[in-house]
Amino acid sequence: MSLPFTLLIDPVSVDSERISFDDTFHEMDSAAPALRVGELSAQRGDGIFETLSVVNGHPQEVEPHIARLRDSAEICDLPVPNPAQWRAAIAYAVARLPQQGELALKFVLSRGVESGPAPTAWLHATRAADFGAVRATGVRVVTLDRGYPRGVAERAPWLLMGAKTLSYAINMAALREATRRGADDTIFVTTDGYVMEGPTSSVIVRIDGVYVTPAPNGAILHGTTQQSLFEYLRAQGVPVEYRDVTLSELREADASWLVSSVRLAVSVTTLDGAPMRTDFAVSNEFNSYLLGRTDN
Amino acid sequence: MSLPFTLLIDPVSVDSERISFDDTFHEMDSAAPALRVGELSAQRGDGIFETLSVVNGHPQEVEPHIARLRDSAEICDLPVPNPAQWRAAIAYAVARLPQQGELALKFVLSRGVESGPAPTAWLHATRAADFGAVRATGVRVVTLDRGYPRGVAERAPWLLMGAKTLSYAINMAALREATRRGADDTIFVTTDGYVMEGPTSSVIVRIDGVYVTPAPNGAILHGTTQQSLFEYLRAQGVPVEYRDVTLSELREADASWLVSSVRLAVSVTTLDGAPMRTDFAVSNEFNSYLLGRTDN
Repeated sequence: MSLPFTLLIDPVSVDSERISFDDTFHEMDSAAPALRVGELSAQRGDGIFETLSVVNGHPQEVEPHIARLRDSAEICDLPVPNPAQWRAAIAYAVARLPQQGELALKFVLSRGVESGPAPTAWLHATRAADFGAVRATGVRVVTLDRGYPRGVAERAPWLLMGAKTLSYAINMAALREATRRGADDTIFVTTDGYVMEGPTSSVIVRIDGVYVTPAPNGAILHGTTQQSLFEYLRAQGVPVEYRDVTLSELREADASWLVSSVRLAVSVTTLDGAPMRTDFAVSNEFNSYLLGRTDN
Repeated sequence: MSLPFTLLIDPVSVDSERISFDDTFHEMDSAAPALRVGELSAQRGDGIFETLSVVNGHPQEVEPHIARLRDSAEICDLPVPNPAQWRAAIAYAVARLPQQGELALKFVLSRGVESGPAPTAWLHATRAADFGAVRATGVRVVTLDRGYPRGVAERAPWLLMGAKTLSYAINMAALREATRRGADDTIFVTTDGYVMEGPTSSVIVRIDGVYVTPAPNGAILHGTTQQSLFEYLRAQGVPVEYRDVTLSELREADASWLVSSVRLAVSVTTLDGAPMRTDFAVSNEFNSYLLGRTDN
């Protein structure tokens, strides 16, 4: 099967609590139109998604991605996805994808066509960009104010901060702003100076030998790759911690990484133009571990 | 031509500064797929839009809507739309739409297919809901914290606050939160207590006889319907003003309205459950004026 690969899933029964899909999946020509313009994904960015990596035929962290899709659905008042059906759809797609190399497999649950009967769901796989170089050399990062003070997520759940919605225009704008400033990526900070996350990644900081990530207290996404790395570190007896991280702690860190499902772990080499301490040996170890996962 | 009506516009030349479209438009069956799943509108809410009203064959406020689309394009680093071509597309659509009744005509400029050559553009017309009752009786409104302090838009342009992007998941969530609280609509306020806008409307408040709307200083959209009403009021010598409005000023106002392109002007009858002063005579006058516009 050539890439990109597209699979539409037809919902057969939906109520406000739960969505079930047809067991048959519809492979589409990715170059052909698949969505109506009345789609709320396209009109309103109104839906949720996950992107997982498929490495040499092995989909990575399927269960954490499905779990987060369910969390996102709940936050967004979407019918809660049936894990068994998403598992089946992912397996169906992966069986038809190239069994060599790194792929990105996105799965989407949109609120559907406006005034329509049901959500829309699809999977879309593409060849991953070649991230070999950036894994080896790291990224230059700028910090950008996310506009929100710490604690707003709990007070204002309608801001959907813990959900991975399709409304990513700000995330994309933040990456363009990084480029404009001569950098490669962005770390969002709260208006009061706390580290949040990247537009498409989680932040891990090593402080006095402890691997720390900002607590996913509703204001940021709970990163599937970050969780995977914390499991790996814990298994080796290395201390890990979820807690608030200030911008000055980030600047002074022993080392820091942006981690995400497809690009995996990349070292932060500069922050707002200033050099950062790095540990490329650990970056390499992280990526070897991440690329070697075959248990799901 | 039956509704919904869908028109795709093919870009023929794009550079980073400017987009030009094919002069021929492609009418689509609205029930048929028109967009690829690789569309950044559907994947990332990455694009901009406008919705104008067509009343008995007359499109309303075409130029302000096109002007705002251009502003949004600039804020979002999209190629700037060519006004003549959007004017032509709108005229083409309107000539084919029912000449009676109220319609909503949405026009969209998406960043296009991921890694694709050009933005995607379309128009989509639907019959407007019957807003007769709500124009006559008003709406119950809740205020919701938008999470942002006043002034953040100037400091953080990557938040795209002055652009009408397709990333509307929060706006939609705020309307669901209103419903959950037994209300009909929402007014967003800053974390420090200033009135912003509704999720799909502008706010006009009458304070001591002066019609006031929050200054569109980059943190809110400059409402096309609000501008039209200010022109109307000015022409009659009624004082209007753009300035900051606090939540307590809103609560104490002589009267207040949510105004938008298709629903037009609706009185705010309760705010967070407390009754508000209303002036339905003015609401009726506003809507008579708005429905009678035939000059564009």
